[in-house]
Amino acid sequence: MITMNKKIIVGVLGAGRIGKLHVENMLKLPNIEVKTIADPFIENAEEWGKALNIPNLVKEPKKIMNDPEIDVVFICSPTDTHIEMIEAAANAGKNIFCEKPISFSDEETLHAYEVIKKNNVKAQIGFNRRFDKNFARVEDNVSSGKIGDLHILRITSRDPEPPNLDYVKSSGGMFMDMTIHDFDMARFVSGSEVSEVSVMGNSLVNPEISKLGDIDTAIITLKFENGALGVIDNSREAVYGYDQRIEAFGSKGATEIENELDTRVKLSTGDSVSEDQPLHFFLERYNDAYVNEVEQFFYAIRNNEEVPCTFKDGIMAQRIAQAAKESLMSNKPVKVKNIKE
Amino acid sequence: MITMNKKIIVGVLGAGRIGKLHVENMLKLPNIEVKTIADPFIENAEEWGKALNIPNLVKEPKKIMNDPEIDVVFICSPTDTHIEMIEAAANAGKNIFCEKPISFSDEETLHAYEVIKKNNVKAQIGFNRRFDKNFARVEDNVSSGKIGDLHILRITSRDPEPPNLDYVKSSGGMFMDMTIHDFDMARFVSGSEVSEVSVMGNSLVNPEISKLGDIDTAIITLKFENGALGVIDNSREAVYGYDQRIEAFGSKGATEIENELDTRVKLSTGDSVSEDQPLHFFLERYNDAYVNEVEQFFYAIRNNEEVPCTFKDGIMAQRIAQAAKESLMSNKPVKVKNIKE
Amino acid sequence: MITMNKKIIVGVLGAGRIGKLHVENMLKLPNIEVKTIADPFIENAEEWGKALNIPNLVKEPKKIMNDPEIDVVFICSPTDTHIEMIEAAANAGKNIFCEKPISFSDEETLHAYEVIKKNNVKAQIGFNRRFDKNFARVEDNVSSGKIGDLHILRITSRDPEPPNLDYVKSSGGMFMDMTIHDFDMARFVSGSEVSEVSVMGNSLVNPEISKLGDIDTAIITLKFENGALGVIDNSREAVYGYDQRIEAFGSKGATEIENELDTRVKLSTGDSVSEDQPLHFFLERYNDAYVNEVEQFFYAIRNNEEVPCTFKDGIMAQRIAQAAKESLMSNKPVKVKNIKE
Amino acid sequence: MITMNKKIIVGVLGAGRIGKLHVENMLKLPNIEVKTIADPFIENAEEWGKALNIPNLVKEPKKIMNDPEIDVVFICSPTDTHIEMIEAAANAGKNIFCEKPISFSDEETLHAYEVIKKNNVKAQIGFNRRFDKNFARVEDNVSSGKIGDLHILRITSRDPEPPNLDYVKSSGGMFMDMTIHDFDMARFVSGSEVSEVSVMGNSLVNPEISKLGDIDTAIITLKFENGALGVIDNSREAVYGYDQRIEAFGSKGATEIENELDTRVKLSTGDSVSEDQPLHFFLERYNDAYVNEVEQFFYAIRNNEEVPCTFKDGIMAQRIAQAAKESLMSNKPVKVKNIKE
Repeated sequence: MITMNKKIIVGVLGAGRIGKLHVENMLKLPNIEVKTIADPFIENAEEWGKALNIPNLVKEPKKIMNDPEIDVVFICSPTDTHIEMIEAAANAGKNIFCEKPISFSDEETLHAYEVIKKNNVKAQIGFNRRFDKNFARVEDNVSSGKIGDLHILRITSRDPEPPNLDYVKSSGGMFMDMTIHDFDMARFVSGSEVSEVSVMGNSLVNPEISKLGDIDTAIITLKFENGALGVIDNSREAVYGYDQRIEAFGSKGATEIENELDTRVKLSTGDSVSEDQPLHFFLERYNDAYVNEVEQFFYAIRNNEEVPCTFKDGIMAQRIAQAAKESLMSNKPVKVKNIKE
Repeated sequence: MITMNKKIIVGVLGAGRIGKLHVENMLKLPNIEVKTIADPFIENAEEWGKALNIPNLVKEPKKIMNDPEIDVVFICSPTDTHIEMIEAAANAGKNIFCEKPISFSDEETLHAYEVIKKNNVKAQIGFNRRFDKNFARVEDNVSSGKIGDLHILRITSRDPEPPNLDYVKSSGGMFMDMTIHDFDMARFVSGSEVSEVSVMGNSLVNPEISKLGDIDTAIITLKFENGALGVIDNSREAVYGYDQRIEAFGSKGATEIENELDTRVKLSTGDSVSEDQPLHFFLERYNDAYVNEVEQFFYAIRNNEEVPCTFKDGIMAQRIAQAAKESLMSNKPVKVKNIKE
Repeated sequence: MITMNKKIIVGVLGAGRIGKLHVENMLKLPNIEVKTIADPFIENAEEWGKALNIPNLVKEPKKIMNDPEIDVVFICSPTDTHIEMIEAAANAGKNIFCEKPISFSDEETLHAYEVIKKNNVKAQIGFNRRFDKNFARVEDNVSSGKIGDLHILRITSRDPEPPNLDYVKSSGGMFMDMTIHDFDMARFVSGSEVSEVSVMGNSLVNPEISKLGDIDTAIITLKFENGALGVIDNSREAVYGYDQRIEAFGSKGATEIENELDTRVKLSTGDSVSEDQPLHFFLERYNDAYVNEVEQFFYAIRNNEEVPCTFKDGIMAQRIAQAAKESLMSNKPVKVKNIKE
Repeated sequence: MITMNKKIIVGVLGAGRIGKLHVENMLKLPNIEVKTIADPFIENAEEWGKALNIPNLVKEPKKIMNDPEIDVVFICSPTDTHIEMIEAAANAGKNIFCEKPISFSDEETLHAYEVIKKNNVKAQIGFNRRFDKNFARVEDNVSSGKIGDLHILRITSRDPEPPNLDYVKSSGGMFMDMTIHDFDMARFVSGSEVSEVSVMGNSLVNPEISKLGDIDTAIITLKFENGALGVIDNSREAVYGYDQRIEAFGSKGATEIENELDTRVKLSTGDSVSEDQPLHFFLERYNDAYVNEVEQFFYAIRNNEEVPCTFKDGIMAQRIAQAAKESLMSNKPVKVKNIKE
């Protein structure tokens, strides 16, 4: 067992954008040591890693899995490697932080879940928005009863620019790589499971996306088990910047957040009265949330508590994304199944 | 033909809330005379009508239809009388202002449309929100290209309190009495016809409404002919007050309106930082819009121009409402047919 | 005595911008008749007056003063004619609505006040902002104790463009023609008399204004009899539009209004996130306030109640303006004397 | 000379609230080591210091001054020790970060300035607000010409609660301990020196403060050398929370910031529509600014550039505070002298 003051030793799989982000955030936390980073293309990250004094920059995941000093593994490698890495880490008795989505296969994800439970390790999924103070406050306003029973949950989630087409080919589709955050947010804020999904989608931003069998614009309607209704609107391209809003409406009121802007500065001229523009994208918008996310993960490990975003949370968001894909194809509402535990 | 300065003589059918509202607004306009008001229960409006010096307060619509001095008929009587009144007024050569919805029957509405066209009279439908300066500006931002091609249209429309159950029985259902305004707004702002509707609804405000076969909470998804997507969220009861918002999102930006509040006054105390509350309901919220609506109607008559909200607009909103009802029943998307002219 | 339903017959002196505004507003009110308008240059207003069916368009004020049918005189002529017109109207037993400032001479104003009191007629001064629903709500928040004891009152008041230099020559100076509204607002919202004024001013907008002995930019600090402090900032030119804000801060909180914009529409593009721009100037910004102002004046006459903005209010605002001028000249704080009644 | 990658070794004088804050922030920065903290009551900070692994927790400043390894001294001890500490550190060749105000004596401050210049060390004064991204953006909007020539600068600065009376006795008065930040902000945003100050003040929050010869509520008017005017309103107690706003108004427009709130979450109920409340006080409100402040200080040292908030900035803010005190006493405007260099 890891006690309060013991240093936690971390290994990181994947030195891409999100892996680097987590490493840099962990370096600011007390009593956390990032010992090893493994990436098949580690040469691209060597300069960065050395400047940060990371002891081991390696190619092989087993340098992490086989290192008995390492307590925790961050899985920031591509989605198609997740299952193998999760199971290896769990079998090595290491606690796991895994980026979303867990995988593209419900069956494989459930198998990994069994391995985690069998080894009794902790596993947190990287739904960073739960750790944003604005979204967390909305969730608190709902769960503490300030708006009464939830009737309508409304999420707007738009990216500032579409991903490149190579990414689209391998991402699992818009619902799996982008909307999955909104599906998690819907479950998080409502405190209820989604039972049914209905989708209208289109490819309005870039017709090339349509040729790859994906969409870039969607309205997704949700029915929750508790009877409430939800709606998500998505676009791959909001030219004014990343747009992240939510509103929960209920029997006693409503709570909402407007999009976050860089500053609260206003500029009035003969031409216009302008607010500041939104923060560019998720790295800027959720900067503090990413720090909170790993702090709470380490807190859960140190105090042997439940992690704040569980493996089941990852499974369910993935299932809703899968149902949304089916609804888009069939032009009909599709049921979402809960897992049995 | 009515020239610019000629006085226009008006007859009004129905002296209920909306009839009285139009009369009081018309009395402030130059060169408009409200000569006759007809209502089977005119005794309830006599004191009011006399205080306003209305010359004739009668029970019989024919006192209006047969009066050659009367140029214009306002039809503010119950929906089930509309068709008969429209056809009588049109056959008497009178221009018509008719409240929404036109009727509950597409067939009857189309018949009335033929009578109107045959008699070559003008007919405006009372979708008052088009004349609100906020909504009109959003429409202008879209039609003038400020947001590029429309991708997503989002409408929030919530009443402050549910209607009484007697009203629910005869109103034609939530889509026909309440959402019909939102359907019109969707067509107005998008500048496109709705081709498909998909609904998720529930009865969360008052279970008695459910027993009457109606709902009080809904998410309605729209597909437009031009490819754009739309979504409307409705509730019969927003405890904080009437809530009317819209956002149009497109390839070059977005334009939106927040809910209108009574004043812009803020109050900060040790307990809270509060804005003012919303205007109570449609009479307060659309006070100026109701005045603009009739002014523009009379302007169209005087200048022999197209009215700003046509009979066809009334037909199409009614058809979308009908399709929404079918989608709710069948739990499937339903197509909306355009009319042939 | 004028009873509730009796028609009130009005004569108007001055057919300039503000005279016309009041006439057009009065024409929308029930049981008010504008019988006669007098202006030495009445020929410039004849087309306008005839279109509105005003019975008498004359040059001579005595056509109003000597007409026993006329109950009420609106004095909208130049400031230097006010005293003569007030005294003539009062001596003719007519109730008076007079635009601000009453005069440039405290002595003459006090003399006119005696004539009014001797004749026992009502006299309302045209401080229109008191009748704006935003400012009225702030006053109500203060007088009802919502912010506790007033500590600081802050007023921002900036015109969209400087007046022409001819106007500057005859207006009595910025404090007398522009800030006088803010001085009235300070007394109205605080519910207290101003006891001392201190000014820093400069001519930053247009140096020509300085050559005429006036300023165009000022910070005016106020001490109230109840101990509270106040500050007004003025500019003759806010290029983004008319800017009218107020904040009252006290022992239990604060209440404020932001500047009023034309609509609540927001537009977000790749370049900026813009609110709508402010309403251009006082005619647009205080449109409803001007209507409320005359409605409340006529209500006071019909019900024989105190008018909502008294002749004393006019005297005191004028005295503060005079003290501000002295403070600017002497670069020292200057006391303001209350009147004895 | 200290190169980019060399570790900077820091000594800190004073382990009170602000000293601890700087230490905790420095621990998150790369290549900064806090080696020694000196405080006569160091025993109160031992538990805290040991948990952070600070090597030396001592009572004597000379343990810092005499340590050749220490490059930088943070002076966070009481104001009446500043001069002695500044001079000792400068004579020891150490770079200095000193909290505000430098001292209560212009003469002593100028002497310390000579010692600093003679020893050619860097000295930054702790006006943290310059490093807040909102205020920095306002300054940038002004200095980059976005609002043209500055005409009016308006600062609202109110604390959430008055200090205890013991603090009032030794703080140098409200202008020296609180408004001094606003005086610095006025110079920073305007880019101009203040040439004249005029004050109206009162003791409205707590009459005990008045008995100690101080005030708790003030309006301070400023004249800048460039002709612009400024105004600061202060209160020792805003019951709704710390209130920090600024507006710069000029020939081509205006730029402003509203008060910063904890989140952007809104809550609408049947009772009210509420924003979140302000961040409690300076530690919460300027959390990020304190980090930026020391980061920029170390950046200046590493790159041998001018510090972003100079000793002269400290002198001038202190002089304006002194002039404000004189104006309050004399009830007259008071000139501020610039220093000759």
